[in-house]
Amino acid sequence: MVNREYLAMLSNKNVIRELSEYATARGKEIGYENVFDFSLGNPSVPAPDSYRDVSIRLLQEEEPLKLHGYNPTLGDPRVKEKVAASLSARFGLAYTPGLIFPTAGAAGAIAHAVRSVVEPGEEVMVFAPYFSEYNPYVHGAGADLRVVPMKEDDFQINFEAAEAIFSEKTAAVLINTPNNPSGAVYTEETLQKLAEVLTQKSQQYGHTIFLISDEPYREIVFDGKKQAYPAKFYPHTLTCYSFSKSISLPGERIGYVAVSPDCEQAENLVPMMGQISRGLGHNCPSSLPMLAAAYCLEETSDLSVYETNMNLLYDTFKELGFTVPRPGGTFYIMPKALEENAIAFCKKALKYDLVFVPGDGFHAPGFFRAAYCVDTEKVERSLPAIRRFVETEYPNR
Amino acid sequence: MVNREYLAMLSNKNVIRELSEYATARGKEIGYENVFDFSLGNPSVPAPDSYRDVSIRLLQEEEPLKLHGYNPTLGDPRVKEKVAASLSARFGLAYTPGLIFPTAGAAGAIAHAVRSVVEPGEEVMVFAPYFSEYNPYVHGAGADLRVVPMKEDDFQINFEAAEAIFSEKTAAVLINTPNNPSGAVYTEETLQKLAEVLTQKSQQYGHTIFLISDEPYREIVFDGKKQAYPAKFYPHTLTCYSFSKSISLPGERIGYVAVSPDCEQAENLVPMMGQISRGLGHNCPSSLPMLAAAYCLEETSDLSVYETNMNLLYDTFKELGFTVPRPGGTFYIMPKALEENAIAFCKKALKYDLVFVPGDGFHAPGFFRAAYCVDTEKVERSLPAIRRFVETEYPNR
Repeated sequence: MVNREYLAMLSNKNVIRELSEYATARGKEIGYENVFDFSLGNPSVPAPDSYRDVSIRLLQEEEPLKLHGYNPTLGDPRVKEKVAASLSARFGLAYTPGLIFPTAGAAGAIAHAVRSVVEPGEEVMVFAPYFSEYNPYVHGAGADLRVVPMKEDDFQINFEAAEAIFSEKTAAVLINTPNNPSGAVYTEETLQKLAEVLTQKSQQYGHTIFLISDEPYREIVFDGKKQAYPAKFYPHTLTCYSFSKSISLPGERIGYVAVSPDCEQAENLVPMMGQISRGLGHNCPSSLPMLAAAYCLEETSDLSVYETNMNLLYDTFKELGFTVPRPGGTFYIMPKALEENAIAFCKKALKYDLVFVPGDGFHAPGFFRAAYCVDTEKVERSLPAIRRFVETEYPNR
Repeated sequence: MVNREYLAMLSNKNVIRELSEYATARGKEIGYENVFDFSLGNPSVPAPDSYRDVSIRLLQEEEPLKLHGYNPTLGDPRVKEKVAASLSARFGLAYTPGLIFPTAGAAGAIAHAVRSVVEPGEEVMVFAPYFSEYNPYVHGAGADLRVVPMKEDDFQINFEAAEAIFSEKTAAVLINTPNNPSGAVYTEETLQKLAEVLTQKSQQYGHTIFLISDEPYREIVFDGKKQAYPAKFYPHTLTCYSFSKSISLPGERIGYVAVSPDCEQAENLVPMMGQISRGLGHNCPSSLPMLAAAYCLEETSDLSVYETNMNLLYDTFKELGFTVPRPGGTFYIMPKALEENAIAFCKKALKYDLVFVPGDGFHAPGFFRAAYCVDTEKVERSLPAIRRFVETEYPNR
């Protein structure tokens, strides 16, 4: 007999997957360039040339035995040193190499971070809207995910609603800013308030509540602003990062956990992740891609296209009468649908070859997500389709 | 509070790690070239040039967005197709791309394979001596590892002892041939007998017992022989492979699970692994190294050095009076120590700058492992030290 839990999961429908498959199939009929596929968060700008150049240089110059050899359990010391130095310089926290754990992308980072500070039966709090893959990470650690309802006007944290979700079992809070799916960038005020609440709740329950901060979109912030660094506000922070978006390497699966210098048990957390890794079959990210990325820490792909696309879509949605908080970063926007049922709304959009994702999977019913990591030219061509869709289907909006 | 289980693991001593650290420290005193470090299974021959060449070609010629982009959850279709075709041609089973799940090395492969066919509370059987990292993979799936005592004369399977270990809870049997740490190559007779036993026990218990076959050393077989392919003998086989040893890429973390075409639920197992991957934070191996390896499926590093080294060590051990089954493959040899306590034996060897690993961690008390993935020149220089060690410490052996 095979494992029945995983077998049963095969019959669960994945809405994003289904929409994406629809888009691919429709693309075969009318040409994919004519499908306005806003379903997938796959970067649309290439990795910087320097990533290719450093990869080739390493392949040509390094001894293959060393370049492709086993890394120590806790990661390549060169990578750890470079990441620690870069984070320290950028954010003013005293990271050391021992506080950095290289991982297979943010997925690997979160899977390790959650297991390190959460025990089976405890709870991890997230704020809606949130990335649905947080569920398997948390369940995989034997813990429960508790969702705080969203703050609809700006997608910052709904602290009032959080009050009812905190409990003695709250072991960690998992945030994602800039946020997938909303595009919200948590402000300094939000992070300051969160730190105060976590400090107070930790005191009240007699144990530290950890902050796990998932930051793959850290470098994609609009209007010349920067994302305030969550670990600056609260000491017990595990920062999870991925190079998937900043230098467009999602397939290479590289990232890290950075444990804040003042975090409880700071010196033990990375060694614990080394132990966690064994059971997961993780054992460090791939050596060449990880090392090459460590040479590109201060670089990004040309991310400006995302801001251009955001403005085009935001202005159009606003003009058409949508309720839509303006994204501060990422490559997502999340307007309120024009009818209560966002799934029905997104189905109607398909008739106009517009592929949006209903917010239900992100714990944001009534909203929908558009991922604008596509060519600007395509976004421009999509605007008349959006207009036609809205004016035809919702003439009395 | 952090996770207490993982925290407690930090105080467990890892004998191999300690020995390896000793060797490194001693190397700083007398020069690492003078430490006969037989502790670690790290390949000593470089990756074939073609791996470097194809990596560079892909970096230069492929679109970066595609080369470094997300793979489908179940893996890069190009990789799956190449692996399926190669396995089918080599071993005469009708593998299709849908039966191949690319993974982060054999570690990732086993972590997924075990979870797919085992449920929490069930048992996985292994045959001593075995690789100690099987413990976390099996425990990570919530299952129990049951160890069949070894067959000391040739390190084949001790079927008689297995009788007492089989139970209704046996969900899978995990084998490793060629074997780490013994160097044994399971014969056709062994695999045939194993298939018969598994078929009979499956019938008796009313459920299929799966065979998980861990084969990273498949290509390192001596005397011009070949490893018989376990999946040929038993249909319900999940073959786990890694490119770490055959083309010397242990740091790149690439491998796969191949589900036998006639396996129970064959068509569902790879999709189930896709679900398992979510909770583990695994999400496919790194795209460039995996794709490059898929272009090198029919190649190996120059593996002949391992056979040369084996013969040097085997002949010396025999001559000195050790009981030692001759390895059929891998880069390990496992003689019986010259006193009952192999840990004491290995400690004494350190005085001669010989670093061996006691068999206790492999469930082989009284034996020790020597990993001869080192330069032949060093093996040659180690022989007088071995002779001096044995003649001085065990004059009356």
